[in-house]
Amino acid sequence: MTQPRSDLPVVRLRPKANARAIRHGAPWVFADELVVDRRTGKLPGGTIALLEDADRNAMGVVAVNPASKIIARMLDRNPQATIDTSWFAGRIARALDHRERLYERPFYRLIHAEADGLPGVVVDRFGDALAVQPNAAWADNMLETLVDALQAVTGAGVFVKNAGGRTRALEGLDDRSDVIRGSVGGPVAVPMNGAVYLADLTGGQKTGLFFDQRENHAFAARLARGQKVLDVFSHVGGFALAMLAGGAENALAVDASAPALALASEGAERSGTGTRFGTRQGDAFAVMEGLAREGARFGVVVCDPPAFAPAKPAREAGLRAYERVARMAAGLVADGGYLCLCSCSHAVDMTAFRDASARGIGRAGRVSQLVHSGSAGPDHPVLPQLAESGYLKSLFFRL
Amino acid sequence: MTQPRSDLPVVRLRPKANARAIRHGAPWVFADELVVDRRTGKLPGGTIALLEDADRNAMGVVAVNPASKIIARMLDRNPQATIDTSWFAGRIARALDHRERLYERPFYRLIHAEADGLPGVVVDRFGDALAVQPNAAWADNMLETLVDALQAVTGAGVFVKNAGGRTRALEGLDDRSDVIRGSVGGPVAVPMNGAVYLADLTGGQKTGLFFDQRENHAFAARLARGQKVLDVFSHVGGFALAMLAGGAENALAVDASAPALALASEGAERSGTGTRFGTRQGDAFAVMEGLAREGARFGVVVCDPPAFAPAKPAREAGLRAYERVARMAAGLVADGGYLCLCSCSHAVDMTAFRDASARGIGRAGRVSQLVHSGSAGPDHPVLPQLAESGYLKSLFFRL
Repeated sequence: MTQPRSDLPVVRLRPKANARAIRHGAPWVFADELVVDRRTGKLPGGTIALLEDADRNAMGVVAVNPASKIIARMLDRNPQATIDTSWFAGRIARALDHRERLYERPFYRLIHAEADGLPGVVVDRFGDALAVQPNAAWADNMLETLVDALQAVTGAGVFVKNAGGRTRALEGLDDRSDVIRGSVGGPVAVPMNGAVYLADLTGGQKTGLFFDQRENHAFAARLARGQKVLDVFSHVGGFALAMLAGGAENALAVDASAPALALASEGAERSGTGTRFGTRQGDAFAVMEGLAREGARFGVVVCDPPAFAPAKPAREAGLRAYERVARMAAGLVADGGYLCLCSCSHAVDMTAFRDASARGIGRAGRVSQLVHSGSAGPDHPVLPQLAESGYLKSLFFRL
Repeated sequence: MTQPRSDLPVVRLRPKANARAIRHGAPWVFADELVVDRRTGKLPGGTIALLEDADRNAMGVVAVNPASKIIARMLDRNPQATIDTSWFAGRIARALDHRERLYERPFYRLIHAEADGLPGVVVDRFGDALAVQPNAAWADNMLETLVDALQAVTGAGVFVKNAGGRTRALEGLDDRSDVIRGSVGGPVAVPMNGAVYLADLTGGQKTGLFFDQRENHAFAARLARGQKVLDVFSHVGGFALAMLAGGAENALAVDASAPALALASEGAERSGTGTRFGTRQGDAFAVMEGLAREGARFGVVVCDPPAFAPAKPAREAGLRAYERVARMAAGLVADGGYLCLCSCSHAVDMTAFRDASARGIGRAGRVSQLVHSGSAGPDHPVLPQLAESGYLKSLFFRL
């Protein structure tokens, strides 16, 4: 047996903690599972420590944050591991190998937190530019080391720290985003699904572009050839530009954000589909009502709203909002056409979202078949132990 | 309001039946929901009838089978509908339109039962040849009319009746398969995912080839470039041939059926990948044990076994079998390689299958991330009301 490191502070599981689950791959220790004496309670957020079970057997190297409900995150099950640049580089190289098999060009989520062995760390790659989200205290502390390793493994030159993640507050972290290495000249051109998107790495929502919907964009594009299509809550045009590249006759994008629609329009120009692309800025519900009054009908309608139920207290109101979206959007779908409804709400699971969507479609007086249920793409792996939390759901109905 | 047809026998819901669910799209009436008096009890299986609610309001035209737990299946919510060739043709044309959007060539599941408005009817298309499964009494009775309509809409010349469906016995139907129009010269060549498969329409399992895994074959192919790959329970080579077409260095297919492996080998020849394709005939567990003893390791391992838990009583034993498959297969995956585990068991849902798979992988001493969860392709639509029954689950783990 390897000797654990003696230079680290030790934290210990309570006898009643589920040590077996942690041994079998659970990545988190919750606050009520750990002995929190005065010493442990005073450890600075993000302290690297050795985790022991209640019988003082070493279980691995963890990052401790007494301020968080997730009081410890497993970094390495080898109790001798040293968390340094070369440790980071090993995790990153393994993650990169997976993405390079899947994608011909370097545009993808490179690191997806726990599943890629870097708890709380999210990195999106836009060619030479990497947007890094250090969403846990240990990663925020070690950001320089992480970026050194990312630079060494990928050769990227531009690094943006994105501090917009909702979970940073739970870890007691600030929300200051910044360009930390290299410089960003303007929106970055991102080729996906035959279209070109423009990602604003410093001013946009999340990391400026959502890679998670890529496979669902591609599926929508398969349905769109020759059709008039509508993309509601379009952001920078994720679905609309892919459908135009797939041969849609024309596409209308609806969003409340004028800057997002401007990026969508510029993306359509760059994709060579600008003449077939239109936008309406405004409240999505109001615009859908207006389209219904005009008698507009589309071969494909997509609604990819922001999370209506990001957390449990908002669940019931969120489901009502999803039902309302489904009802209003269904009325805009031509007979035999398709309706794609998406949810990125953690608190709404697939069954509840599907039921709300089907209910809304039914209230619009339409009959539907469900042809495809999509989720986040394969550059967003999950741990099997956390798989229930697969947050992204994209349902394709035919009406 | 339209007048219901007066020439049909009438069947009536009990007051306690869930008429609302049926009005909102539920396609089935169960035996305990219907008034079964002497007259209704004596209706021949497959009788076309008018369904009324307990207050004698017409709800639609149904097919009645007093011998089945599903005593009535909704055919048309219009109580005036006439179930004739042109009625079938309308449903088929609508289903065909969907498939023609999705696929460039005429090889797909053309009719997927309830979701395509033809309860209990499954039709697979292999170019000019259609394999028809009339799995409910009404469709068995009306097979000639159905085939007339299929021929008129698709122009296909060869029709095979496949009576191998498990549900036929529940409907009191025979299991005699037959070529009913045209003639079948031998296995049919089926192009999918860059490979050529050979489908034996008269002798094979189910309809001779499984279209449902097509999207999952394609995903496996994305992972396989340059890899040695293993396809356990290969049948006619679904995953193996797609992975070879995707650039796998070589592929080994394992199956208990010599005829299936012969078709797989011939498919590999036709695909131009025969020199990179090998087979081992035998019990899958024994062959996997043998490979483990030889120290064999593969970049991608796929296990797509027959249903270990086709119905509820087999659920626990089935889950143990899936865990065993996962454990044995995981030991054959190279470090950083991929394991695809599939289940086509109705009685095992996604969560239970994922847990059993993760448990087996853990027992093999391996750590995994889940990179993709696939299901049946979009030519297998489902009614939202029956979506829980999505039977096919294909999980892609990275180890």
